[in-house]
Amino acid sequence: MDNATLKNLNHDTHTYQSFVPPNPIYIISSASIAGDKEGKGPIGKLFDFISEDNYFGCKNWEEAESELQKKAMEYAINKAGITENDLRLIFAGDLLAQSIASSFGLLNFPVPVVGVYGACSSLGLSLFLGAMSMTAGIGDYVACVTSSHFSSAEKEFRFPLAYGNQRPLSAHWTVTGSGAFILSKEPKSGNDVRLTGFTTGQIVDYGLKESLNMGACMAPAAADTIYRHFKDFNTSPQDYDKIITGDLGKVGKLALLDLLEAKGFDITDRHMDCGIEIYNIEAQDVHAGGSGCGCCAVTLSAFILKQIKEGLWKKVLFVPTGALLSKISHNEGQSVPGIAHAVVLEV
Amino acid sequence: MDNATLKNLNHDTHTYQSFVPPNPIYIISSASIAGDKEGKGPIGKLFDFISEDNYFGCKNWEEAESELQKKAMEYAINKAGITENDLRLIFAGDLLAQSIASSFGLLNFPVPVVGVYGACSSLGLSLFLGAMSMTAGIGDYVACVTSSHFSSAEKEFRFPLAYGNQRPLSAHWTVTGSGAFILSKEPKSGNDVRLTGFTTGQIVDYGLKESLNMGACMAPAAADTIYRHFKDFNTSPQDYDKIITGDLGKVGKLALLDLLEAKGFDITDRHMDCGIEIYNIEAQDVHAGGSGCGCCAVTLSAFILKQIKEGLWKKVLFVPTGALLSKISHNEGQSVPGIAHAVVLEV
Repeated sequence: MDNATLKNLNHDTHTYQSFVPPNPIYIISSASIAGDKEGKGPIGKLFDFISEDNYFGCKNWEEAESELQKKAMEYAINKAGITENDLRLIFAGDLLAQSIASSFGLLNFPVPVVGVYGACSSLGLSLFLGAMSMTAGIGDYVACVTSSHFSSAEKEFRFPLAYGNQRPLSAHWTVTGSGAFILSKEPKSGNDVRLTGFTTGQIVDYGLKESLNMGACMAPAAADTIYRHFKDFNTSPQDYDKIITGDLGKVGKLALLDLLEAKGFDITDRHMDCGIEIYNIEAQDVHAGGSGCGCCAVTLSAFILKQIKEGLWKKVLFVPTGALLSKISHNEGQSVPGIAHAVVLEV
Repeated sequence: MDNATLKNLNHDTHTYQSFVPPNPIYIISSASIAGDKEGKGPIGKLFDFISEDNYFGCKNWEEAESELQKKAMEYAINKAGITENDLRLIFAGDLLAQSIASSFGLLNFPVPVVGVYGACSSLGLSLFLGAMSMTAGIGDYVACVTSSHFSSAEKEFRFPLAYGNQRPLSAHWTVTGSGAFILSKEPKSGNDVRLTGFTTGQIVDYGLKESLNMGACMAPAAADTIYRHFKDFNTSPQDYDKIITGDLGKVGKLALLDLLEAKGFDITDRHMDCGIEIYNIEAQDVHAGGSGCGCCAVTLSAFILKQIKEGLWKKVLFVPTGALLSKISHNEGQSVPGIAHAVVLEV
């Protein structure tokens, strides 16, 4: 399907939000770097590198998160069989104020950096922009990388760890991890995963104000983007082997399924959430599940791409989800709007 | 010149960092919204809207900054003669943690939002991504918008205003303002300004740690991007009527001129800095000059585009400059790396 056909298919009144790269864009390599807790989770064995030390050899958590991004980039570049000089652009994002995990993590790469911010949906944005840049004819290789770190995120958004506050059951556990992806117009191997479609999301605000219930805050945006994706592409849930959200967790998942059912789509039998898959939720005591820019990034790299490459899933709708808040907006009584961007992955 | 020619021109060993849109991309409208102090500066009369109330009718500074972005978007959309539903994407950025000025300012536009972060260079990134998206065939219209607010920025990066700390002479005054730009592949009028080239910048770190001397921190990145631009396009300063940096201020300007002279380029007679132009520096007591994502945005919209449209300047190299720091990285003893992205503007 090309963009013209796609546009004509869209008979709804809403703004058209999707894009099909006219030429194939491949993920030719990827890497996942994770922390100790993530390494002990269900997909822990699949990560490229796990550190028992959550400081990753650094002096503080922010530098540790930068180190995560740096390492993820190095692994992905190596696995692609290229050098850093072959990269034309890096699309990068994280959750820290002024995106310092990216700024300091990517400092030494001799490559222009495009900082993106979509909270935990940033990986979706990065992949979209990466595919867009290749479509515009920019470079042979670009990289997309995002990260999060449990301790730097708690400090950034909530309470100092040493304060030991109680976390409600709706709270998420921010994933310590980073995933990096190298995109190219030429496949490196026969089963490289292709990025075949994108639906960029609007900011959606249901007025929820709970920063300790991010799943509920993000679910309306996820539902909106997935609904618009079905409408834009004239598809239904049955056209995808899996529909995978970023980090809705247990609470957000229920809200998503309900919201989509109200719009006429039942995705129950094929929905998966990276935030639920990445931990043994009960045993690891993570309450609603994992979250963060690193959550869907390491899960995509280590698990989802593997499933597609092995032929277990043919077509996947991957939907990173983000909660747009800061501690300032939260303390000033603002709501927590959500945003989500959908990416179609196929062999 | 097309991208292939451009690539062949590049005989240097550095990574190739430039892009020429194969088809014209026009800025068909723009708007500038500013605060009281900016309204009293040398280009104050040119702004579309000035508020004497720096809260812009809102409850706090962060909401005021969101209101700035919202208003800039509304003015730009109106001036373009389109509706918000005609926009395919909004590329937006600001300086606040987790980009909340953009998130809340753009909440009610029924358009997907791509959050960008390059500190005060974000407008350069937004215009680059906007041109890239149009080149990739996405939509008929996209918007680019950035903002900053003196009071929200001081709170975010430095000291509470009520504390009344002394500011060294190297300090900048963050501009209260927002500029929005509507891009299209079709011109709206005969003298619409075209975006004809881009050089995206690497992160450059000279190890400076002074968050109250942002000009010095950003100058090496500005010099690097401008140098690479000349090399990539095989041009020299004489090919541009003006070379305009975002917010280097008086200190950064001196450093930039020196650094470029050391690389063999003298831009003294045609360099201009938005941070120096926007205020009457001595009379308005702003020390080194203006800064912020809003500084170059309102100056581009109100003054630079006007000069080009009136035929006073034919070709301008516009280089928004950013300082990549947060209060956390600063307090942890990190340096303040810089980044700059260059945009060629022509009739």
